[in-house]
Amino acid sequence: MSRQAYALGIDFGTESGRALLLDLRTGAEVAVSETRYRSGVIDRVLPETGEELGDDWALQDPDDWMAVVETAIPSVLAAADVPAEEVIGLGVDFTSCTVLPVRGDGVPLCTLPEWRARPHAWPKLWKHHAAQPVADRLNEVAAERNEEFLSRYGGRLSSEWYFPKLIELWLADRGVYDAAAGFIEATDWIVWHLTGNERRQRCAAGYKACWSERDGLPPTDYFEAAYPGFSRPAEKLGTTFFPLGTRAGTLRAEIAARLGLPETVAVAVGNVDSFVSVPGAGVEKPGIYLMVVGTSICDLVIDPDEVRLPGITGVVADGILPGFYGYEAGQVAVGDMLAWFVDELGGPGGDGDGYAEFERAAARLEPGATGLVALDWWNGNRSILADADLTGAILGLTLQTRPDEIYRALLESIAFGNRRVMENFAEHGLELGEVVACGGVAEKSPLLMQVIADTSGRRVRIPAASEIPARGAALFGAVAAGAEAGGFDDIATAVAATRPATARAYEPDREAMPIYDRVYAVYRSLYESLGRAQADLLRGLKRIRVDRAAQSAEKGEPGE
Amino acid sequence: MSRQAYALGIDFGTESGRALLLDLRTGAEVAVSETRYRSGVIDRVLPETGEELGDDWALQDPDDWMAVVETAIPSVLAAADVPAEEVIGLGVDFTSCTVLPVRGDGVPLCTLPEWRARPHAWPKLWKHHAAQPVADRLNEVAAERNEEFLSRYGGRLSSEWYFPKLIELWLADRGVYDAAAGFIEATDWIVWHLTGNERRQRCAAGYKACWSERDGLPPTDYFEAAYPGFSRPAEKLGTTFFPLGTRAGTLRAEIAARLGLPETVAVAVGNVDSFVSVPGAGVEKPGIYLMVVGTSICDLVIDPDEVRLPGITGVVADGILPGFYGYEAGQVAVGDMLAWFVDELGGPGGDGDGYAEFERAAARLEPGATGLVALDWWNGNRSILADADLTGAILGLTLQTRPDEIYRALLESIAFGNRRVMENFAEHGLELGEVVACGGVAEKSPLLMQVIADTSGRRVRIPAASEIPARGAALFGAVAAGAEAGGFDDIATAVAATRPATARAYEPDREAMPIYDRVYAVYRSLYESLGRAQADLLRGLKRIRVDRAAQSAEKGEPGE
Repeated sequence: MSRQAYALGIDFGTESGRALLLDLRTGAEVAVSETRYRSGVIDRVLPETGEELGDDWALQDPDDWMAVVETAIPSVLAAADVPAEEVIGLGVDFTSCTVLPVRGDGVPLCTLPEWRARPHAWPKLWKHHAAQPVADRLNEVAAERNEEFLSRYGGRLSSEWYFPKLIELWLADRGVYDAAAGFIEATDWIVWHLTGNERRQRCAAGYKACWSERDGLPPTDYFEAAYPGFSRPAEKLGTTFFPLGTRAGTLRAEIAARLGLPETVAVAVGNVDSFVSVPGAGVEKPGIYLMVVGTSICDLVIDPDEVRLPGITGVVADGILPGFYGYEAGQVAVGDMLAWFVDELGGPGGDGDGYAEFERAAARLEPGATGLVALDWWNGNRSILADADLTGAILGLTLQTRPDEIYRALLESIAFGNRRVMENFAEHGLELGEVVACGGVAEKSPLLMQVIADTSGRRVRIPAASEIPARGAALFGAVAAGAEAGGFDDIATAVAATRPATARAYEPDREAMPIYDRVYAVYRSLYESLGRAQADLLRGLKRIRVDRAAQSAEKGEPGE
Repeated sequence: MSRQAYALGIDFGTESGRALLLDLRTGAEVAVSETRYRSGVIDRVLPETGEELGDDWALQDPDDWMAVVETAIPSVLAAADVPAEEVIGLGVDFTSCTVLPVRGDGVPLCTLPEWRARPHAWPKLWKHHAAQPVADRLNEVAAERNEEFLSRYGGRLSSEWYFPKLIELWLADRGVYDAAAGFIEATDWIVWHLTGNERRQRCAAGYKACWSERDGLPPTDYFEAAYPGFSRPAEKLGTTFFPLGTRAGTLRAEIAARLGLPETVAVAVGNVDSFVSVPGAGVEKPGIYLMVVGTSICDLVIDPDEVRLPGITGVVADGILPGFYGYEAGQVAVGDMLAWFVDELGGPGGDGDGYAEFERAAARLEPGATGLVALDWWNGNRSILADADLTGAILGLTLQTRPDEIYRALLESIAFGNRRVMENFAEHGLELGEVVACGGVAEKSPLLMQVIADTSGRRVRIPAASEIPARGAALFGAVAAGAEAGGFDDIATAVAATRPATARAYEPDREAMPIYDRVYAVYRSLYESLGRAQADLLRGLKRIRVDRAAQSAEKGEPGE
């Protein structure tokens, strides 16, 4: 590849979308532009009608996504000052499972006057949690029937996924359900919008809709058992899913013209934001443990073999990179647990500065010096206990305990929780070497990165790249374009050619490691007893609280 | 008793002494005066020499105690405007075990120029903890030898007690040890100072020096086994101890003259501050559970029978009221745990106001609504686990947890810890009815009192008296004076005649009780697992911290 070529990646996040122009010869991030969604997360009232939404609702407006395409792409092109014909490919990634009902021609129902006032016609954002009762029912029936597919998902389906959201729609608004030709991932929808071709991809289908190439969807009689009458699970989903990097098509003429791009730009099938960080961070081989560290942690591993192991979010063939089984695991409360402490208990500095202050003060403490250990279950435990009803704990408190010691203990608990996830992979034959970390908290907390190195005994490397998911999306765009066009034949070649340098690396501290081994032994014992053998204690506390709230509500007392 | 009579009580606390004039016909508190100790708690440097004291040291100056006598008594007499001849008795109570080495004539060694520069010549305050290694050794040997006396103390001697402090002196400064004719409780010393008679009492001897009327002191060969060469345990203590209420003598002429009191004023043998709260609070019968609620909680029970039960501080014949076995139990971190939370984690309001704010906010929450449970072991657990190495815990934390919920959980943990102590008494045949509570936190936290009522299922009554220990001391003074002089023949009669009214009573809330039963079941399970079966986890955390500090100290790193 000698001639100059660029690819565009668009990363659709929760509050905004970011477009990146990537130089395919050097891997340099040439230009970036962010466009915030005008309506952001719609979680209080429905636009226009003002209808109040339930507590667990979270919607988005597809117009906001289209605005990212129309604004951010011309903006990066202008900033980059690159000849438009040198842009050869485009890839997108999106939050997931963000899904919307669409007409047969791809028009979102919520954009049509006859459905606009119906909340269920709108795209449901990944963190829309109103389908929890459906997820509970689906899990219960899957466990009863000992459904084989469940073991690919660590034994539990999330309420955030495709079928809970689809069945919620089916139960709550049959009119919208019947009017929808499809119920589609936003990432697949935006590709359809860009190319005119409906090309759903395997990543979301595998991780969020329980599909596998070998077994297809969960069996119809399973759904029928859980929800009699809901008998055609593929009706709104289809059964054809394309591998990542597949060319979905090229830009529609009218869009290409508006954006100032040639119609020849190849568009890859859609991607999911966390998974696309793997190529984005320069990872294309097994044995590397990628952590996306933000509000929560998403751990991603690829391996040539399929292993069923407990407590993962999912294992999907070709789900992350074609040719590998992709494993996802995670910790639920990370950045938000630290933010909780700073905001709620951090005193007057709880304004962002408070965070930096605690980070500095905690960094001055020695490993093992706090006498504290925490269980990082402020929002339940995903990996490896898969128990949303667990809650957090701090142990070892004395009259001498200082706030910075508690902050450090919380931070250490994230690293201990992570060590447990890594051990789980190793115990099931997936050997991991280096840790690669990216995401906001990986940048913001060198202390957390060092403690992860010290507790895991592994080097933690931070890639020198600021737009990891968009990079990954752009690389799939370059694969869709192909080597002949100046792109790449496959994603591994693309990654190798553009791999970002290392911004920082944290080596395990040989003195800290044995001390953390001792603290981790305590953590691990508490993990087993409070997380398994005695898990009913923590669950019981939650139960009492829930019962109490229900009782108060019955009596008409003010709720929480 | 028809003629007017008054008694004086002096309560020697940690930072000050308070004198009370009590009307023996009505039980009214006629006048009170407080005198702060000029040197307070001497815990940094020795006065005059400026020698630095160790971390765990806490001394006092006997001149400060004498200043209370000389200042506070004239002050209450002046304020009361009562004829001096109507004052018939005087009693004192003191923190314990606060002990000092004295010459044969009762002069404290630390007041003599030749010993003044020697730290061990000074009175060691109850909370002087530098004798912990001695206490550890004494406990170890007592357990090995299966010493019978140990079971009177719930299986563990405290470092605060008489023999740890005496042996610390014997080990560290043989010169002072040999020069001391006696090593005496401050309460017995002040009575000696007032009357010229050395009359040590049974309360401190029993609770702090492991003496009993039946068995005497622990055997000489026990001490010899623990500390070869330390072979005469009674040498500085004596073997004669007088029942509470015994007349030690009358005021020395020169003191009487200086104070403006008749020489006929009868002085009772000394008392210990927590125990004397029993008569002070109007309790003279078995079946009542008296809680002195302050920085820590001291629980006092009297019963005609002797029962050996685990986890109490001690059971002593005649130790609280003559004719009964007196039981002491307790919780170590109470007011100071709440203060820790307000000061360290309570945000900008942590200035005293913060406390009231949290109290109000926590009172608005419903029982069971926090989803939290805490183990109140911020300073170890006294009753009933007797394990100083346990540490505190908060469980059930979520991203929604608010500071006022944590505050309430800490407060509830005090009540749960108390319920466990009460259950322990009941399990061993000591049936308890009403709870009577006094002390600073009992006044300051109606919420804690209500929660204790709700968790124990018992009425909690607060006596309408502001000077409970000084009342008790004054009543013993009135008994020392005797009925003929206008006092009383025995303490039961004295208590019955002067019993304070009820200021407030908290009835158990029948709706809250079953909810707390559910939370308590969780608390109790955690108590058993983290406090017993898995106690090595919490102990291990402490061990790691201690090892780490030692390692840092070796390397010359800055300590904590």
